[in-house]
Amino acid sequence: MKIVCSQSDLLKAVNIVSKAVPARTTVTILECIKIDARENDIVLTASDTQLSIETRIEGTIEERGMVALNAKFFSEIVRSLTSNDVTIECDSSYKTKIICGKAKFETMGRSGEDFTALPLVSEEHPIVISQMLLRDIIQQTIFSISDSNDQKPMTGEQFKIEDNHLRIESLDGHRISIRNVLLNEDLNPEPVKYDVVVSGKSLNEVSKILTGGADDQVRIYISKPAEDTMNETRFIRFDFDKTKVVSTLLPGGYYNIDQMVSSEYQTKVRINRRELLDCINRANLLYTVEGKKEPFVINVTDGLMELNIRTMNSSFDEKIEIEKEGLDINIAFNPKFLNDALRVIDDEEVTFYFINSKAPCSIKDDEETYIYIILPVNR
Amino acid sequence: MKIVCSQSDLLKAVNIVSKAVPARTTVTILECIKIDARENDIVLTASDTQLSIETRIEGTIEERGMVALNAKFFSEIVRSLTSNDVTIECDSSYKTKIICGKAKFETMGRSGEDFTALPLVSEEHPIVISQMLLRDIIQQTIFSISDSNDQKPMTGEQFKIEDNHLRIESLDGHRISIRNVLLNEDLNPEPVKYDVVVSGKSLNEVSKILTGGADDQVRIYISKPAEDTMNETRFIRFDFDKTKVVSTLLPGGYYNIDQMVSSEYQTKVRINRRELLDCINRANLLYTVEGKKEPFVINVTDGLMELNIRTMNSSFDEKIEIEKEGLDINIAFNPKFLNDALRVIDDEEVTFYFINSKAPCSIKDDEETYIYIILPVNR
Repeated sequence: MKIVCSQSDLLKAVNIVSKAVPARTTVTILECIKIDARENDIVLTASDTQLSIETRIEGTIEERGMVALNAKFFSEIVRSLTSNDVTIECDSSYKTKIICGKAKFETMGRSGEDFTALPLVSEEHPIVISQMLLRDIIQQTIFSISDSNDQKPMTGEQFKIEDNHLRIESLDGHRISIRNVLLNEDLNPEPVKYDVVVSGKSLNEVSKILTGGADDQVRIYISKPAEDTMNETRFIRFDFDKTKVVSTLLPGGYYNIDQMVSSEYQTKVRINRRELLDCINRANLLYTVEGKKEPFVINVTDGLMELNIRTMNSSFDEKIEIEKEGLDINIAFNPKFLNDALRVIDDEEVTFYFINSKAPCSIKDDEETYIYIILPVNR
Repeated sequence: MKIVCSQSDLLKAVNIVSKAVPARTTVTILECIKIDARENDIVLTASDTQLSIETRIEGTIEERGMVALNAKFFSEIVRSLTSNDVTIECDSSYKTKIICGKAKFETMGRSGEDFTALPLVSEEHPIVISQMLLRDIIQQTIFSISDSNDQKPMTGEQFKIEDNHLRIESLDGHRISIRNVLLNEDLNPEPVKYDVVVSGKSLNEVSKILTGGADDQVRIYISKPAEDTMNETRFIRFDFDKTKVVSTLLPGGYYNIDQMVSSEYQTKVRINRRELLDCINRANLLYTVEGKKEPFVINVTDGLMELNIRTMNSSFDEKIEIEKEGLDINIAFNPKFLNDALRVIDDEEVTFYFINSKAPCSIKDDEETYIYIILPVNR
């Protein structure tokens, strides 16, 4: 194999596929990036078996072939090169030369044959969404997945699509995050219906490599449930720019979130988001410094929210002006959970809905494009 | 005690004195920052016994007094506050309130009485130097101190002052770094002579808080050797802006560096510094990825420097155009040592002087404002 491409294109592609290289693995071929120039395109691939990423780069194929190179070493090499043309050349024993200007690296590659191909996902009924919007709604919900493997579905996010309406949900037992978006009907002329749980780790990586704007699109393909076998793995594929990302779907169902969302409330509070976030960050110091998880108490009266934490040696108090409807309330939270939700909302003002001091509170806008539900802490 | 000052002044001062707070200590009072408002100034102090830093801030003293607050907690609190006036108030039991806008922290402070005062250093015969220059020459030599306590003097830097000439030297057994500067005679009218070893850790912290430019000055005071006792600790004090930094001097003598500096050479090479640095960084990948320390070989012939590393599985080669005088030479180095020296030199081109493949090579300019001496590796 012998290919020539620009260092900047190569670096961009290596950075994208590297997201799928496992941090630790006993299968050494998975530590590699496969460079496939057997056909007319130069295609880079990496995979940790759950998540596979493939991306194409512009370049000249002087001799067709394929090689797999250690991902860490190869990406460091590419990063170290000057912005010039890079030649990658390997012989039949996979000894590989990487040449750029007067610098030349030589290293032992491996046959790319051991690398499994990207799982096939039927290209019927895609969902088309802007890159920016998909990145945003992932980042606005991903923080409330669970990292515990005891509750497998909690490690993913539910994607619910029906009638041009996409809803992403995540929950970790203490809080729920929901984002609702309407899909563009021109781009999504056929009505589709899906209800799948996507691995949170994969979504996290997808959101990092989705660098496009509002006008750049992602096509999402979801494999159909198999009718004959119970155990067949299903996949989701994200196509954008020159990249394809395929991730396994989590098996089994998800939680019935609708049942946990209530529109009843006794107290409605409108508050400046920035002021509240700054206050929570200050309050959080008592958590991080003293290491004790004392409740962060919120006391709502007419026009005023008083917030405080008391630990053995220290205390914090702050008052913020608010608009209030309904009853006074005294309720306590883990400030981290409030912070996580408030930090991903774009609105200048946010609205809290409280039922009572034991029931979950919600933060949502009138159109319910976002709903964050947070359990209070017991005192 | 009750004082009022601006959040930005307070934060700046806390960041400066925090450099002296020990990371780990069994003496809990040393984990504190002392706020002393017993006289007409507000003075913040921290110390790890070797290094003490004191800085004054503008503000109003509404009630005189003194308190010591946990450094980590206090600095996090100050950082979290809005840029407003901050009131710090403590009662006779050292219960301390920190109030800014509508936010109020309360915490238990301690009496500042246990805090030892800054060691006294006579203000006779100061050395006056620009903040920028002192910062530069510390940062340009500090990387070649040793962190081994077996060779105590190697953990410091030698400051040699004579006839308005300041020379800073450091060495770690593999390399030597020297910077020579001429002191401004108007600012240093009296001739002084000092020859002391300053703790490298202290110098490192000093270089970080020296933020002034070429026109901002530092006054350096060095305590005289005691004539009667052998064991008295000596100190160096750096005065700049509103800050005083006092560090213990390392006891005992330093190495005779002059004896190790040779002006003889067989090969003289002039090379572009940036090109060589980039090449070394690329070569360094084979070190970092494979973890084996193979020699980085430099082969100098007429007009050309060829550089290469060969490990078990990989190799790197590069050629750089040079100007050469004298004999051809083939010599090997640890690329890190070359990198450390080249990275702190400002010149676009640098000159190497080689004697033979076993003898140390030097990198220096014609005026010897800098001299870097590096031992080759044996092959």
